[in-house]
Amino acid sequence: MKVSRRDLLAGAAAVVALRKDAALQSPSTPTDPSKVRGKPSRALGQRALSEKPQRQPRGVNSSGTPHQDLYGTITPADLHFERHHGGVPEIDPKTYSLLIHGMVERPMVFTLADLKRFPAVSRVHFLECSGNFGGRGAATELTPQQIAGLTSTSEWTGVALATLFREVGASPKATWFLAEGQDAAVLTRSIPIAKAYDDALIAYGQNGEAIRPEQGYPARLFLPGWEGNANVKWLRRIELSDRPFMTREETSKYTDPMADGTARLFSFLMDARSLITYPAYPVTLSRGWVEINGIAWTGSGKITRVDVSTDGGATWTPSKLQEPVLSKAHTRFRHLWNWTGSEAVIMSRAADDTGYVQPTRDTLIAQRGVSSVGYHTNPITGWLVRPDGSVVYRAEPWS
Amino acid sequence: MKVSRRDLLAGAAAVVALRKDAALQSPSTPTDPSKVRGKPSRALGQRALSEKPQRQPRGVNSSGTPHQDLYGTITPADLHFERHHGGVPEIDPKTYSLLIHGMVERPMVFTLADLKRFPAVSRVHFLECSGNFGGRGAATELTPQQIAGLTSTSEWTGVALATLFREVGASPKATWFLAEGQDAAVLTRSIPIAKAYDDALIAYGQNGEAIRPEQGYPARLFLPGWEGNANVKWLRRIELSDRPFMTREETSKYTDPMADGTARLFSFLMDARSLITYPAYPVTLSRGWVEINGIAWTGSGKITRVDVSTDGGATWTPSKLQEPVLSKAHTRFRHLWNWTGSEAVIMSRAADDTGYVQPTRDTLIAQRGVSSVGYHTNPITGWLVRPDGSVVYRAEPWS
Repeated sequence: MKVSRRDLLAGAAAVVALRKDAALQSPSTPTDPSKVRGKPSRALGQRALSEKPQRQPRGVNSSGTPHQDLYGTITPADLHFERHHGGVPEIDPKTYSLLIHGMVERPMVFTLADLKRFPAVSRVHFLECSGNFGGRGAATELTPQQIAGLTSTSEWTGVALATLFREVGASPKATWFLAEGQDAAVLTRSIPIAKAYDDALIAYGQNGEAIRPEQGYPARLFLPGWEGNANVKWLRRIELSDRPFMTREETSKYTDPMADGTARLFSFLMDARSLITYPAYPVTLSRGWVEINGIAWTGSGKITRVDVSTDGGATWTPSKLQEPVLSKAHTRFRHLWNWTGSEAVIMSRAADDTGYVQPTRDTLIAQRGVSSVGYHTNPITGWLVRPDGSVVYRAEPWS
Repeated sequence: MKVSRRDLLAGAAAVVALRKDAALQSPSTPTDPSKVRGKPSRALGQRALSEKPQRQPRGVNSSGTPHQDLYGTITPADLHFERHHGGVPEIDPKTYSLLIHGMVERPMVFTLADLKRFPAVSRVHFLECSGNFGGRGAATELTPQQIAGLTSTSEWTGVALATLFREVGASPKATWFLAEGQDAAVLTRSIPIAKAYDDALIAYGQNGEAIRPEQGYPARLFLPGWEGNANVKWLRRIELSDRPFMTREETSKYTDPMADGTARLFSFLMDARSLITYPAYPVTLSRGWVEINGIAWTGSGKITRVDVSTDGGATWTPSKLQEPVLSKAHTRFRHLWNWTGSEAVIMSRAADDTGYVQPTRDTLIAQRGVSSVGYHTNPITGWLVRPDGSVVYRAEPWS
């Protein structure tokens, strides 16, 4: 990119020519933006015309975050993944209420205004669907969104569930609570009460504003680091008990078959995982230095290390983690790589502060059985960079 | 809010009645959301129908962030304040280029793709217009947006300017650089080169996605903690020099008259400030415990303390700061208060890690002169809570 003055002038001419060409194709973009008055201020901003990040709906009940289009760690609210079982309900915040009852001294009903009156906390956390793994088949033209779009990170604001449990006088004998949504699926899950006293929230804020409809407006249960479906959205009722409720969503669904033929119940924790988001399908890479980067996260706490391999897993190098690394939040990792034009497979492997290391496909299969790995599938995955610069998904096949 | 089973049943009946009433008024909100299938997944989320946060344009060249509607610290991108001098230009990212020249070994032109190829950094920072102070007149029906809407916080992603300066071989004799925008105003500012080697970025990402048009799409200068206008948007040229350029925007504008008749030039730093965002006009408060909360920020580094007064400044109590407190970013502070129904003036006062304390109006006037305090006006301000619960802006009058 070293240029002489003559180059600069020639380059300027070329740029002008290019701009004229672009102007013909796209009449709304001025040839020289400095020669025309721009748009006036307005009540709500919009994206630039050239930027069209979108969630990609899979059926009517889910859509994923386009990680290939994103930077940093925050997921814009309108691109946060969605997963629901009966569609996104429309709830009037004025009539919204949350009942807390069961093994408590004082059953109480909280309006949204009541919830907002309690001391609030704001924390940045990821949220991930336990079914967040695409790419089992032979397809290679898969984007980061298709591989792992069902995880997103937001700043969540709400009241600590522990605060509400003190308010209602939760019985010390209560060990579980039921959370029930008011969507058409009336989703119910049983949650160990210890989580309420650890870090659970009733969240009504997301990325600075009111929580979005797909994320549970006007209020949802938020269980940092635990599988998405347990974070019951559109929350209308919490019942305290001394045993789990064994609801449909924790018996017929959201259990994990194991290699020995048994099934694992109440597998809430989302283990460490990582995903290279650049370079990834569908970009075409050019030779030279490039910064491989992606996101890593763990439900256990903080990501402590993400190793990157550019030779299909033969050797690994620690990447650079973007500070501050926050607990139970997407962490951006970066690794400089000089791509010489040879075929290469790039991979990432996350580790967290419990010592857990993201497993290989073979390790996962040994634990869980070849054909039954459904929820909680977090193998190391890779991208194949071909000599022509095209990048496609590369992982060993799953049965 | 203690309830018996009978109360619960009566309450449920009342809720049903209320919902029916609401349904009549708002036919799109179902009486019982659990009885109808919700909306299917979609490519882009939208706000709930009841939530309508908006920037309030002041003329065609600015609009502020509605802090009264927000939680936490992140400002949604479409609510980030805007301030421009010739409107918001539309720039084609394919033909965008940034020229760096002047006192360098190798003048170079960088495309947007070039900029993205360098190692990136992501950091959460506030950005504030130096003219961010409303409420000089006698008006009291002013919102937090009208008092201080021209500050917002985002996660910014880009390349360190120091990286580009190494690439072009910046002369060690260069002490200033010019930044020039490609909007209709062709805004230019001179910046001390030390800032480039400290923490300046060329930013192309905002809150996880491409920077928005009003914030400088496709790339802008970002100078953490320094006044907004110096963070030149739609950046097209940087010229290194051994003296400031004395442009129109730093001589006829953006200088600060002082009490002694001189004017202060190049006053880049945004000093510590705080703003209570709840309770604030136009809410009506009800008696009992309420969490006073707001945002505090400083261009110098980290907020170390925000004191809150509920008696018009007679006594002060340290509030609770939301962790993690990030450098040069909005910090949420919270303070529990039992409002008994008496008239009260609530105020906040920020301090930062340099020892700087947010000044009173009188201190500011003593430094800067009564009639001339324009830019960099960061006095302690307050809200008057009246016995009927109405809340209005309360500050001593400015001439």
